[in-house]
Amino acid sequence: MQLKNDLILRAARGEATERTPVWLMRQAGRILPEYRAVRNRLSGFKELVETPELAAEVTIQPVDILGVDAAIIFSDILVMPEAMGLTYEMVEKRGPYFPQTISTARDLEALHVVEGDELSYVYDAIRLTKKELNGRVPLIGFAGAPWTLLAYMVEGSGSKTFSKARRFLYQQPETAHKLLDMIAQSTIVYLKKQIEAGADMIQLFDSWAGILNPVHYAQFSLPYIEKIASQLSGVPVTVFAKDAWFALKDMQDVSCRTVGLDWNVDPEEARKLLPNKTLQGNLDPCVLYASPETIRKETATMLDRFGNHPHIANLGHGVYPDTDPDHVKVFIEAVKSHKK
Amino acid sequence: MQLKNDLILRAARGEATERTPVWLMRQAGRILPEYRAVRNRLSGFKELVETPELAAEVTIQPVDILGVDAAIIFSDILVMPEAMGLTYEMVEKRGPYFPQTISTARDLEALHVVEGDELSYVYDAIRLTKKELNGRVPLIGFAGAPWTLLAYMVEGSGSKTFSKARRFLYQQPETAHKLLDMIAQSTIVYLKKQIEAGADMIQLFDSWAGILNPVHYAQFSLPYIEKIASQLSGVPVTVFAKDAWFALKDMQDVSCRTVGLDWNVDPEEARKLLPNKTLQGNLDPCVLYASPETIRKETATMLDRFGNHPHIANLGHGVYPDTDPDHVKVFIEAVKSHKK
Repeated sequence: MQLKNDLILRAARGEATERTPVWLMRQAGRILPEYRAVRNRLSGFKELVETPELAAEVTIQPVDILGVDAAIIFSDILVMPEAMGLTYEMVEKRGPYFPQTISTARDLEALHVVEGDELSYVYDAIRLTKKELNGRVPLIGFAGAPWTLLAYMVEGSGSKTFSKARRFLYQQPETAHKLLDMIAQSTIVYLKKQIEAGADMIQLFDSWAGILNPVHYAQFSLPYIEKIASQLSGVPVTVFAKDAWFALKDMQDVSCRTVGLDWNVDPEEARKLLPNKTLQGNLDPCVLYASPETIRKETATMLDRFGNHPHIANLGHGVYPDTDPDHVKVFIEAVKSHKK
Repeated sequence: MQLKNDLILRAARGEATERTPVWLMRQAGRILPEYRAVRNRLSGFKELVETPELAAEVTIQPVDILGVDAAIIFSDILVMPEAMGLTYEMVEKRGPYFPQTISTARDLEALHVVEGDELSYVYDAIRLTKKELNGRVPLIGFAGAPWTLLAYMVEGSGSKTFSKARRFLYQQPETAHKLLDMIAQSTIVYLKKQIEAGADMIQLFDSWAGILNPVHYAQFSLPYIEKIASQLSGVPVTVFAKDAWFALKDMQDVSCRTVGLDWNVDPEEARKLLPNKTLQGNLDPCVLYASPETIRKETATMLDRFGNHPHIANLGHGVYPDTDPDHVKVFIEAVKSHKK
């Protein structure tokens, strides 16, 4: 299937593009009334994730409604721990919760390395989405980075400090490495199968990168990201390590094409540190709460700061659920109409 | 009253000291069984904060039990919003909660600039503590930085993103500046009275510094920190802007003697950026979960990285409540016995 719009793939490969491509993390989700209409018919978040027809429907919504240059498959990074044997619940307004957690080496015995079929609902959703997209825009597949998944598996829920998960690294480093390796192996299988099913691009989300100290990040996160990224071929890979400003320079050596930036990173600084990478980001999601005039001005300023460096426009984090979709459209239009 | 141990004050003034002084953020608190014994007799956290005899008792506990080189008055940064007219509740295991929040300019009408007597229980606690310390170690007073207090007053509770508070900055910047100014004025009065009551040192906590983008941090936080710091004289001031790595270089121009560092900051980098400041921090609090051998090794590594730069040893954040007090003692002893 020939893509009618391959801007984001060309930008990811570092090629010059006629304009900057744009999409938003969490674009398929609660910001859209059309998403909420689908979601409200269901028993819960997981039903949506696990039903390929519905996941495909909400994946495509932002392409139709917002006019983004890429779709990202509707799913969750926590499907992986579940496929490995640790089920999660998504508690309304509270976030993820794991009834069982990992606290000792023995707990790893209940886990297994994913072989692929455990997550066939994701591959089915990707195949369906690709068919329905019919080449309009590329489809992004994704997974959580091993450290971020371990953090949830040990902590059992979201946390401000993830101190249980970080304690685990200090008290049981060997078990931590063993678990990280199991997650990395599973993720390689998982992402290869996403690519087989039709994903045109892959993003790794290291959402809790920023709470590790730099030495631990270099020991417990980066090697596993590299292990995964180096095994994926044929499609460009993006790594988004939120708040890990201290590791930005190290991303230059990771086998990925694109590096995602949160809103605290100075684009000029990132360009210097990562001369060979495409950069993705990094408007403060809160800018979308401002007036259309301010959104246009801030978007233009951001684009100018990335200059001629290969760039994929995005926010510096997932769009906040209470953002007005019309303001999202203002952002997208501002990117599309910007003169380089 | 002549101080018997003034190491921390000399280090803060940039003077050479025979060894590095050490204390811990949140040293007076749940890590100590002696604290929990006092706390469990009471109706709640606020009773402890508002009863000078009890606040003084738990303030002094870590001096007796842990052997730290400074006491910090037991209180909370949220006493200030309350003194201005916005009461808070401390919900067990959930954290602070404000029944009323600030969302419009009109809401500011219910607030007033503090004149001092509203917080007399804090000054009484300081006077009592000074008397009971009897010159053993200096006493640190503190307040929240205006941005962090505004964040709670608008958001109404803790939050991963503080998106309501940050939206407020984009949608109502003038009201935000007016509120920040009211908080800054109140905090100047408050801290001057803490100093009058006997505080030997002052620390400003900008706990939510790191979620602002760098432009907003320069507009909505730093000027108010400077406004406060520049009005305090006679005692050294410390500014701890957690996660605001992007503003570290700007701290060089703030009227404070000491800059606090979180555990992600590279001490060597901080020394270069802040040649005229004493640095405070910055061991990862999770190191205290490790074995005594690891704690000693990591502490020595940290101290060596600060080298001969004026330094006050601390963690890079408050000590986590489930830390073993014996491990805290290992950290303190490791600092005290370190050969420069």
